[in-house]
Amino acid sequence: MTMPQLGPVTLADLQAPILPRLARVDDEMRRMIEEDFPLITEVNQHLLRMRGKMFRPTLALLADEATGGPTPRAATFAAILELIHLATLVHDDSVDHSTLRRGMPTINAAFSHQISVIMGDFLYSRAVVEAVRLEDLDALRIIGRVTNEMTVGEMRQLLAHEPLEFTEEQYDLLIRAKTASLISGACEVGALAGDPAHRAALARFGERLGMAFQITDDLLDYTADARVTGKPSGLDLREHKVTLPLIHALPRFTSSQRLTVEALMQTAEPDEGMIAEVVAAVGEAGGLDYARDRASQLMAEADEALQGLPASVARETLRASLGYVLERRR
Amino acid sequence: MTMPQLGPVTLADLQAPILPRLARVDDEMRRMIEEDFPLITEVNQHLLRMRGKMFRPTLALLADEATGGPTPRAATFAAILELIHLATLVHDDSVDHSTLRRGMPTINAAFSHQISVIMGDFLYSRAVVEAVRLEDLDALRIIGRVTNEMTVGEMRQLLAHEPLEFTEEQYDLLIRAKTASLISGACEVGALAGDPAHRAALARFGERLGMAFQITDDLLDYTADARVTGKPSGLDLREHKVTLPLIHALPRFTSSQRLTVEALMQTAEPDEGMIAEVVAAVGEAGGLDYARDRASQLMAEADEALQGLPASVARETLRASLGYVLERRR
Repeated sequence: MTMPQLGPVTLADLQAPILPRLARVDDEMRRMIEEDFPLITEVNQHLLRMRGKMFRPTLALLADEATGGPTPRAATFAAILELIHLATLVHDDSVDHSTLRRGMPTINAAFSHQISVIMGDFLYSRAVVEAVRLEDLDALRIIGRVTNEMTVGEMRQLLAHEPLEFTEEQYDLLIRAKTASLISGACEVGALAGDPAHRAALARFGERLGMAFQITDDLLDYTADARVTGKPSGLDLREHKVTLPLIHALPRFTSSQRLTVEALMQTAEPDEGMIAEVVAAVGEAGGLDYARDRASQLMAEADEALQGLPASVARETLRASLGYVLERRR
Repeated sequence: MTMPQLGPVTLADLQAPILPRLARVDDEMRRMIEEDFPLITEVNQHLLRMRGKMFRPTLALLADEATGGPTPRAATFAAILELIHLATLVHDDSVDHSTLRRGMPTINAAFSHQISVIMGDFLYSRAVVEAVRLEDLDALRIIGRVTNEMTVGEMRQLLAHEPLEFTEEQYDLLIRAKTASLISGACEVGALAGDPAHRAALARFGERLGMAFQITDDLLDYTADARVTGKPSGLDLREHKVTLPLIHALPRFTSSQRLTVEALMQTAEPDEGMIAEVVAAVGEAGGLDYARDRASQLMAEADEALQGLPASVARETLRASLGYVLERRR
């Protein structure tokens, strides 16, 4: 098992082979959320401007093409998955009282907390309606399962604030549920029309990729600055979120470093100095290197999962998505 | 079309013919929400203590028996519908910042706002997983549709605070989406195993029953006192919610009465005197009589929808549920 040689990859590189189909996903999303009620129309317009880079639809379409596609319904499934992703973002922002996402006001900030709870439910139930319409029980099973797993992940997240009690095993369960489940589901749904063995391989690919994706995201919080990530470094620490670098570093801390972490966790609004001190200590104790290694290992496992697929542009593009995740700066 | 002669009916009367099956619904609900994560287990225990009188499962089981049942899976569908009902209550309480439901602290009050948003999502996605497990696309279509309709109803509710703009037509759309859709869905899902003509009849029965249910609920706010309803009379007015009695009364108000309503709607915390004045004005202008007549008319339509069903204890019990809704004092 060796790590593939991956150069810097942009999302545009990954999307180049499937651009017309991504436009179809976009059309499908617009159709799905349409509703003849002015307030919903208004929120929908905001949502479509706020919506993301279509990473999950990209994976679903590539998985489809790597397993015998293009199949026409893959674009509809991809739109359903992005709708579910959007629903979770809307509820997450509401739960976290976030005010900005991708440089735009969140739904709770631009409208209200009430509207963000209801509209998250609207998006999710609309996604279910559309999934049922396709009459594919395998896809429905995947969609139901990953959506429920994400809620369990969100509950786990609420308890990830106790550095002395939150273990690496719990962190793995958290990121698998919160992030990897939907990414894995996107890859698996994309592979539904193909060979069942390929379906399992793509589910595994997506799970490892999704875990690496979250670890990289958590690492960025320790390494990047606001100019690059669009959010200030150390935000997780500021919010008392314990992630892999700190979990690994903590047992290696000096007692004075450990006291600093405990003080930070008990300070409602820790200052820059305190955060910088913990960030430095985590680096010194090898927490960042460890998390990087763990991400690389997951990437290698993801790459290995693709080995059994027939050679194709889509398969190579899926491999290249590993490079994108590794190099990702949002 | 004549209104049936209905005496006072209790929920226990309606449930008597199906008690063992309701116990099975309860078991199914417990099974469905089980999750091996302590915080979720804790919230679930609270939810099960808070859960309601199983009116929707009762209707689903009666509809099943009135259309050729008992079919074993009807109890599972009934549990799924009650789970969806519970999910909407959890989110509604969170959106409304309610602190009590059925005499118990709400999830947002007993735990947190975050937990109530996430656990509502947990319950709803778990309901979808269970519905998919039964592999019945007709049921899935109904469940998806009514869940989405309820969210649209919640959005409509947000705009029901402008007495001069909120029409009876909009009120009908609101109560149909917010309340009648799930009650209608429960009756329709119960009838899935039977004759398709009976399915349509039960959907219609449930819709009319559900609309009458909501109108009766809205009337109670004008007529009952705290001792009977468990909530203070005039709560809707206090929260600036416009319902049918006021909609009908408003064009019949004197200009001084109209000014009082406008003042109330602009007062953040209207006092008892102000509320009592508007309650009295609504009564004088015939708003309560009108809402009562409208509920009776819907009841008669519900009753008529049952005429084509074969005679059975279950059909008569469904008819009796009209009396329960009419006499309901929570």
